[in-house]
Order: sequence, then C-alpha cells, then structure tokens
Amino acid sequence: MTAFKPQDPHFAERVAASFQRQTVMATLGAQLRQVTPGAVEIVLPYRADLCQQHGFMHAGMLTAVVDSACGYAALSLMPPEVGVLSVEFKVNLLAPAAGEQFIARGKVMRSGRSISVCTGEVIALAQGTEKLVALMQATLMAVAGQAGIRD
Amino acid sequence: MTAFKPQDPHFAERVAASFQRQTVMATLGAQLRQVTPGAVEIVLPYRADLCQQHGFMHAGMLTAVVDSACGYAALSLMPPEVGVLSVEFKVNLLAPAAGEQFIARGKVMRSGRSISVCTGEVIALAQGTEKLVALMQATLMAVAGQAGIRD
Amino acid sequence: MTAFKPQDPHFAERVAASFQRQTVMATLGAQLRQVTPGAVEIVLPYRADLCQQHGFMHAGMLTAVVDSACGYAALSLMPPEVGVLSVEFKVNLLAPAAGEQFIARGKVMRSGRSISVCTGEVIALAQGTEKLVALMQATLMAVAGQAGIRD
Amino acid sequence: MTAFKPQDPHFAERVAASFQRQTVMATLGAQLRQVTPGAVEIVLPYRADLCQQHGFMHAGMLTAVVDSACGYAALSLMPPEVGVLSVEFKVNLLAPAAGEQFIARGKVMRSGRSISVCTGEVIALAQGTEKLVALMQATLMAVAGQAGIRD
Repeated sequence: MTAFKPQDPHFAERVAASFQRQTVMATLGAQLRQVTPGAVEIVLPYRADLCQQHGFMHAGMLTAVVDSACGYAALSLMPPEVGVLSVEFKVNLLAPAAGEQFIARGKVMRSGRSISVCTGEVIALAQGTEKLVALMQATLMAVAGQAGIRD
Repeated sequence: MTAFKPQDPHFAERVAASFQRQTVMATLGAQLRQVTPGAVEIVLPYRADLCQQHGFMHAGMLTAVVDSACGYAALSLMPPEVGVLSVEFKVNLLAPAAGEQFIARGKVMRSGRSISVCTGEVIALAQGTEKLVALMQATLMAVAGQAGIRD
Repeated sequence: MTAFKPQDPHFAERVAASFQRQTVMATLGAQLRQVTPGAVEIVLPYRADLCQQHGFMHAGMLTAVVDSACGYAALSLMPPEVGVLSVEFKVNLLAPAAGEQFIARGKVMRSGRSISVCTGEVIALAQGTEKLVALMQATLMAVAGQAGIRD
Repeated sequence: MTAFKPQDPHFAERVAASFQRQTVMATLGAQLRQVTPGAVEIVLPYRADLCQQHGFMHAGMLTAVVDSACGYAALSLMPPEVGVLSVEFKVNLLAPAAGEQFIARGKVMRSGRSISVCTGEVIALAQGTEKLVALMQATLMAVAGQAGIRD
C-alpha cells in the first residue's frame, strides 16, 4: 500500500465535522473512531432494533457505515473545497452479522482528480474474536462548487 | 418479462411474516406495500434523522429497503421450507435521495435452485414527481434446513 | 423508459467509427448491429477458441461485448467532442453461455453531465430459442479534451 | 491474511489442467504463472489486436484473465471432485491498460462450502514500472456432480 499525503492539513477535522452532520450516524449509534490519510474507521454497536429476520444486523446498516467509511477515506485526500459523493458500491456479505460490535473500515485504492476507488470491510467482534462479515468495493466522485454540496 | 409461478401458495403471507420480524424495518418506518410472484415493493418515508451530511436520505437506508425488496422478491418464488440469503449486491446512486417518500422495488430476473438474481430500483417521490435515485443488481442464495435460518 | 434525445446528430456514425477502432472487436468477430439514442446492440458469434474449460464462451468475452455495448449506448447521448470511459461494471452470469450467437445489449438508465449509468444484458441464441445469460450494471464517465481520449 | 490449507493435495495440477482446457487463454496468449493455495497469477502480454479505441487493452480482456485468476484461486481450495463457477464479478478500471504485460492476481477472501468470495487485481508493467489498472470483487459457487461440470 502506498502512503497517501493529504492535500488538506485539516482533513481530520473536516471528516469529523461532516460525520457530525450525518444525522443517520447518531440515529444508528455509529461512532467515528479513526481518521488517517486515505483510511477511516467507524464503529457500529449491535442493536436489536436494527436487525433482519434472523436477529443479525441488517445488511443495509453495515452498508451505511462502510459506505460512510469509504466516503470519508476518499474525502481525507481531497483538496480544501472539494467534496466527494458515492457513485456506486458493491458489497459481499460473507457471514451473518453476529456480534457486539461492527468495525467498518474504508481505505483508498486510487485517489484521482475526479474519481476515487475505495475498498471497505466490516469486521464483527463477538466475545473477543474478529470475523470478516462484509467486503465493499466503491466508486466516489469529487465535487466542487456545486450548490448544496459541502463535505 | 416472464411471469413467474410461485411454488408456495402462501408466498405473500410468508413474506409479510418475515418482514414483520425485520426489526430494522419498523425502526426505519418502512412498510411492505406489494407482494406479487417475483416482485416486491417497500416504501420508506423521508426522515430527517436518517440523512447524510447534505440532508438527503443516506445511501445505506435506501440499500436496506431495496435489499429487502430484492430478498423478498426472491423468497416469493421459493418452495415451502426454503429461505434466501443475500450473497451480494451492487448499488448505483443516480441522484440525491430528496423527496417525501422512497419506493423500493425488487424483481427477480432469474430464480434458480440455488442462486437467484434480482434487480432493484428506488424511486423518490417529491411533490408529485417521480425520480429514479438508485439501481441495484443483487445475488441471493437459497437456504434450506440450516440452523437458525427461516424466512 | 424515457426516450432520449441525442445531442450530436451524428451519434450513430461516431459510434460506428469508434467501434471500428476497437481492434479487439474484429479479433473476436463481434459486429455492431444497432445504434439508437441510448441503446446499442453488438453480436458475438460462438467460437470454440474463445471458451472456458467446459466449452462455453468465457465470461470475459461476454463482458467485452456488453461493456462495449454499454459504453456506446452512453456515447450516443454525449455532445460532440465529449467521449466516455468505463469506470466500473458488475456482471451476473445467469446461465452457461451456450449457443450459436450472443446478443449484447446496452442501454442508458441515466445520462449525466459527468456520470452515465447503463444496464446491459447478453442473450444466447441456441437453436431458435433465446436465453438471458448475463446481466450488467455499469458506470461511465464523460471525458472531454483529455490527451489521447477521443471516442 | 489467513493462510489457507488446500483440501486436495493435487490442487496445482488440477488448476493447470483446467487452465489448459480454457481455449480462450491460448487465443489471448495468457499464461498461468503461479498457483498457491487460495492465490493464482495469470500473465497477459499486450497485443495490438486486443485493444479498445484508444489503443489500450480492452477491459473485457483484463476481465477474462482476472476472472480466471479468481476462479482458479477459489478452485485451489475445493475438495477433489468439487469445481467452481463464477456467479458474478465487479471490476473497477483505475487507469488505462497501457503496458507490455498485465499481471492478473486472484486471491480468496472467504472459501465456503457453497460460496467463495475473491478479490482480484490487474497490474500493468510498463518500462519497468508497475501500475494498478483494475480491481475485482467476485463471487463463485461450488459445484459437484453436475452434468458437464468438471474443473
């Protein structure tokens, strides 16, 4: 993996401020845990009211946090005044999302002027063991100066 | 489009009962609207506490309802005692998820003995106009007799 | 489906000329069959030397023609001087690619200023019957004025 | 990364024999370079007759070799008598496929009884430098005892 150099020295504050504006993150109980250039980690604790029919966390909830982790990983490498939007993502569900906590990690594979590509993963923590439960490959687009688009 | 014949005459009740067990659907305020053989519709009203940083519904919330719509479309064609699990999905985000209501539709493109493939879409309703905001292509797996797997 | 209005009256000639420059299409024996605004069809005859280990056409060959069909569908709606590049695609393989001919169809779902989204399909023709063998969902990017990028 | 233990001591011979039966690999000039448990490498030399309209290798050709690399990575972990089929894949194209050689690598992320998930990459070698040009995330299905399905 290449080490990335951020173009905005305030990338971490930018990511944290944008995360705060994602109302869904507070609603789900997700927390931003780590922001480094090109890599972001979000934690989602288990909640019985966010489950699918077998009592596992719903795939959409895992997708929400790993999509945000990928998006913020991409944002961390953008210049000031340039934001990102998710264009598309693909998620493989590898195992039932059972556990007390879910760690979503996004990292940048390519940071381009207009297109960024990230990979993401969700790890379930269950009684001290870690298990890979989801894998994402995502495309994001840089956006600058569009009405209503900030970080 | 081929018309599908359900293998279980009680497919609609099965889908409705399983939807009821998805705690996340009540938490998000999503409702099951229509179940026909191979096609399912779920409605998600806008909520300010399910948004991303620009005030649009978060992509993970759209994914949750369209993934469930695809899953239940696939389930509607399974024989009794056979359930389905999402293996993977890919979502394109075509426009900001702005509107009062979001209609997620899943339909079966191929229903196989072990693998089903569905396409899904999310339509935003805003002041009487409809707009396609997301497109899904998903793979599901039939599961029978596995511990803990019911519909 | 919305009917699309082309922005370049010469869209069909542009697509045909670009197709001619794709050397791989002649190598595979693929032919451009139909070009309408937002929809393109390419035919690939079966060849025993383009197969995987079971004697079916290799998924990469189907991908080549349906990716080109999607790309040219997107190109057909671009203004003069603006080309497109494939950003990513996802392909589901629904059935073994058995048959005498494979029809790849790409159509535009959304044509944006910078991003276009297409869906594609590959139909196998075998002894007079048609079978859907592959399904694509693809993202393309408009490119203008970049060195080395023409149609 | 977990180290995988092969269930078939003859996995490398099996992969090599199946690769030999893929007629398309000889047609494209692709060679199997490395087979270890859960990881496979295929090399595709540049050819001017396998290009898209700008003189870069066509995305379908890269897909062909990275799909085969992922498939054989999954096959290398199957028990004797069990084969695999590609269910679907998603490919991001990160940079134009310019170079003298393209190295496609597939590796297993999860090897299940019925579903395997792999990630793949294509590296372009151009005048001694390496560049990541494509990224794949793929789903494969184990198949046993089906007519016409061998490795």
